[in-house]
Amino acid sequence: MPLYFIGLGLYDEKDITLKGLEIARKCDKVYAEFYTSLMAGTTLEKIEELIGKKIIVLNREDVEMNFEKIVLPEAKEKDVAFLTAGDPMVATTHAELRIRAKRMGVESYVIHAPSIYSAVAITGLHIYKFGKSATVAYPEGNWFPTSYYDVVKENLEKGLHTLLFLDIKAEKRKYMTANEAMELLLKVEEMKRENVFTPNTLVVVLGRAGSLNPTIRAGYVKDMIKEDFGKQPHVLIVPGKLHVVEAEYLVEIAGAPKEILEQFSPRKM
Amino acid sequence: MPLYFIGLGLYDEKDITLKGLEIARKCDKVYAEFYTSLMAGTTLEKIEELIGKKIIVLNREDVEMNFEKIVLPEAKEKDVAFLTAGDPMVATTHAELRIRAKRMGVESYVIHAPSIYSAVAITGLHIYKFGKSATVAYPEGNWFPTSYYDVVKENLEKGLHTLLFLDIKAEKRKYMTANEAMELLLKVEEMKRENVFTPNTLVVVLGRAGSLNPTIRAGYVKDMIKEDFGKQPHVLIVPGKLHVVEAEYLVEIAGAPKEILEQFSPRKM
Repeated sequence: MPLYFIGLGLYDEKDITLKGLEIARKCDKVYAEFYTSLMAGTTLEKIEELIGKKIIVLNREDVEMNFEKIVLPEAKEKDVAFLTAGDPMVATTHAELRIRAKRMGVESYVIHAPSIYSAVAITGLHIYKFGKSATVAYPEGNWFPTSYYDVVKENLEKGLHTLLFLDIKAEKRKYMTANEAMELLLKVEEMKRENVFTPNTLVVVLGRAGSLNPTIRAGYVKDMIKEDFGKQPHVLIVPGKLHVVEAEYLVEIAGAPKEILEQFSPRKM
Repeated sequence: MPLYFIGLGLYDEKDITLKGLEIARKCDKVYAEFYTSLMAGTTLEKIEELIGKKIIVLNREDVEMNFEKIVLPEAKEKDVAFLTAGDPMVATTHAELRIRAKRMGVESYVIHAPSIYSAVAITGLHIYKFGKSATVAYPEGNWFPTSYYDVVKENLEKGLHTLLFLDIKAEKRKYMTANEAMELLLKVEEMKRENVFTPNTLVVVLGRAGSLNPTIRAGYVKDMIKEDFGKQPHVLIVPGKLHVVEAEYLVEIAGAPKEILEQFSPRKM
């Protein structure tokens, strides 16, 4: 009778693990939420068909306010699955749900799935050198968030890479592009002038991670800001100090300008 | 005729995604390597049975020195899969193989899988607050590595969590336990005396991530160092500044001493 937190992975319905799929198929009731991230390569219908069950989609209020009324009482009597995009524990909301389940006497299990936090390694940047991550949020009215700029700055001071998530307004089906994120960062640079993010900053864009043909592009902001990275979701990475193999990957696989290799040339060593 | 880098995920043969499984089944030839991490819940035979193909296991030398002779020429003629534990791009060795494939004119694709980098969120620690990660390595002869201690120190100064990987000597089937890692860190503390890792430091141990019953334990080093965390693989996490929900999770789910909640009590606020 437990509650299974099952990750759907990154892109389409085939990004669930075999373990997750088998357990979801055995559950008596299947819930899901899609407001914390976007699975661009699939539809609710395709996921339902694969699992062979009707899925009840919960909105933010259902999850954050009413989980104790909707999902947890059922998980005391039946096997219940709660499906989420990416890895099921990466969104802090979901970890909190596990606490709430425990307090109501409901046992819970976690079935991991591919997550952008690890998939970002497909950019060739070494994952152990990523520092704190942050989210580039849309300004709203008089509120212009800038803390993501400070996170990039702190990481750069230590030579670390920064993974920037881009804002999601799921209810409006609005998903920030890497281009919008670069524009916002340039605006914050204008405000703060700390030389953190300029037209000459090297950035990496990863689009549609988890698909067989993700966009992996590296270049300077002044060039990248005009590029079309294809459909969302996008993430933006500001690399810190590059190792020569990271630079080679960015040039070979992500089309970065070859001049980024010059710093490693024997003459400069 | 491309090369598919396919992740096997964390623990057993059912941690591969459906996408990865379908592609591996269609490939003409299937290679794998298991020296960069341990899949404790399965065997080569079980993976072969699931995929329905014989798997050729490569050792470190095959991968690092002879990939151009063994695997890449075949990937010019056939569909070739290269299976690795965890996510296929997280080990820096594998990212480098993609560069080498490109340079030999071999197209490659990446099928992501659950990775410890994201699965660590099952400890309840917020993943965006992890700083740089590091590996606790066994001393060898006169060589006593200590850089992981410095990484913990730098992260703690910023309030960030540190994920510590534990050394693997695959050829000797030797996998460091969290207990051994704590002992090594206490030794480095004795040498450096920077008050980074002491018997009173709060740590979190995650064992057998990806299994349905992973070990998730939190407590002080002086108590944890004596505990039995079950079979490897283990990772050790040194948390930075805790948010109240992180502390609640550690108490409810990971059995941390309740006193870690006192700092959040209204009287102290």
